[in-house]
Amino acid sequence: MPDAPSGVGGELFTEERSAEVVAASFAGTPDPRLRQLLTSLVQHLHAFVKDVELTEEEWGAAIAFLTRTGQTSDDVRQEVILLSDVLGVSMLVETINHRTGGTSTESTVLGPFHMVESPPRQLGENIALDGKGEPCLVTGRVTGPDGEPLAGALVDVWQANDDGFYDVQQPGVQPERNLRGLFTADGDGRFWFRSIVPRHYPIPDDGPVGELLAATARHPNRPAHVHFLVTAPGHRPVTTHLFVAGDPYIDSDAVFGVKESLIREFPVVDDPARAAEVGLPNPFRTVHFDVALLRADQPAVHGAPVGRAS
Amino acid sequence: MPDAPSGVGGELFTEERSAEVVAASFAGTPDPRLRQLLTSLVQHLHAFVKDVELTEEEWGAAIAFLTRTGQTSDDVRQEVILLSDVLGVSMLVETINHRTGGTSTESTVLGPFHMVESPPRQLGENIALDGKGEPCLVTGRVTGPDGEPLAGALVDVWQANDDGFYDVQQPGVQPERNLRGLFTADGDGRFWFRSIVPRHYPIPDDGPVGELLAATARHPNRPAHVHFLVTAPGHRPVTTHLFVAGDPYIDSDAVFGVKESLIREFPVVDDPARAAEVGLPNPFRTVHFDVALLRADQPAVHGAPVGRAS
Repeated sequence: MPDAPSGVGGELFTEERSAEVVAASFAGTPDPRLRQLLTSLVQHLHAFVKDVELTEEEWGAAIAFLTRTGQTSDDVRQEVILLSDVLGVSMLVETINHRTGGTSTESTVLGPFHMVESPPRQLGENIALDGKGEPCLVTGRVTGPDGEPLAGALVDVWQANDDGFYDVQQPGVQPERNLRGLFTADGDGRFWFRSIVPRHYPIPDDGPVGELLAATARHPNRPAHVHFLVTAPGHRPVTTHLFVAGDPYIDSDAVFGVKESLIREFPVVDDPARAAEVGLPNPFRTVHFDVALLRADQPAVHGAPVGRAS
Repeated sequence: MPDAPSGVGGELFTEERSAEVVAASFAGTPDPRLRQLLTSLVQHLHAFVKDVELTEEEWGAAIAFLTRTGQTSDDVRQEVILLSDVLGVSMLVETINHRTGGTSTESTVLGPFHMVESPPRQLGENIALDGKGEPCLVTGRVTGPDGEPLAGALVDVWQANDDGFYDVQQPGVQPERNLRGLFTADGDGRFWFRSIVPRHYPIPDDGPVGELLAATARHPNRPAHVHFLVTAPGHRPVTTHLFVAGDPYIDSDAVFGVKESLIREFPVVDDPARAAEVGLPNPFRTVHFDVALLRADQPAVHGAPVGRAS
């Protein structure tokens, strides 16, 4: 064609060099970390579009989906986080930022339900205020990475009720702060409390993310778990779950939160004397969950991940 | 740790195999294309997170940014498309889906301003109804891939006014359908009309995308252009721009829409007789833009792109 341009300085867009051309547009970003993030994002995003040869119709569907996902979010619901969750991105970010080096309890996603403070409770108290579910005694011990007990460690726990809902999802239905407690470990780092065996429950599936799960024949369930957030002075906190072995969704968590090192059996105890001692009907279920924290001065683990604690 | 799990069937999430584990969750997707898209998306998304070792703070900022981008969109503004534009994704999708094989006019992004129908006009009519800007005679010819004239081809054109706004952005300020026209090429495929030399203008930069551009020291401007949408029976339509050589933003289009084959000089004509003939004040600017369409029965170009038409 005639009229070749003159005086064009920069490199124009081509299919072959699309990522390089767009990345170059970010070359002047003052913050070097932001420049790194955007350069890498552009490279991976363009590689995706090219790998699948995304059609204009598919691009339009993706735009509409992302728009609705943002618009479905409000003060009490975060659909973009939910999308990150079901794509395994939340769990990947969590894992990368909390590598254990094999010497401490593995972390998993915080989730959206730690939105109210757990009430301080005495060791042994029952956090199941609604009288539903299978009674369970939870015991454990908080230690440092070398097994030294962490006296006075704070153990914050929360879980869904036997109907599969957290208290904050059912205001006025469940007792306030049902199935939440903040416990202080004893002088030997030990903690114990009464609760119920958790049950699996679905993530919110009436929005765009639910449509995605339906279109891909994925179920929306999370396997049964109790949340733990454990802290102790001079140590790195850990946000994690205790999972129930044998849960039907243990190997297909909708948000990929399950790590093998966090799964425990919940054996039945049939012992009237012991039941009376702990204040539960006989028989009852039990579970033991030890938590090991890294010291705050231990360097974060960078580079290639090491094997899982197990 | 004690209590090793039993009966776990599927593969659990690990940092090393995160993409494989998440992709496997989509293995049951009934639509094979959707399965392919999500599998590839997960691989590239996880590779990005791992390459940059995304921090939890950065992940949170990304979630908030995407949420606000969706929420900034409404009936008359699409901020998610704008994000796709400034990351070069819109242009990449456009380019992949409209490979020319080097024998036809290259396409570029449609943009958000083709939202009203252009009014049918006679060849030679003036589409600049607001009296602003530098008068210009636009001429061209529509042909098939082998240069055969396409009599009666429809040439739909639209552009911003001399203040950098489209008519639909300034209802009540600009005359209705200012700088829009639908022309029918003559028996020799030729078209001509009067307009103004376009000027560069900024994309909307008062939302999240504007914040991104500011944080990365990128300007929001698009180089001056006239939009063309050219159709003819039995041929593939083309959506493209005519760009002005020498525009200060010709090599830094905020949305990467510039292709070298679409840039033209707009030479001055100083010829009172010719000016009187075309109905413009003397001197005036001119530009010539030929458009070549592929035949509808020509197969789409797949696989590696060929060289650009130039």
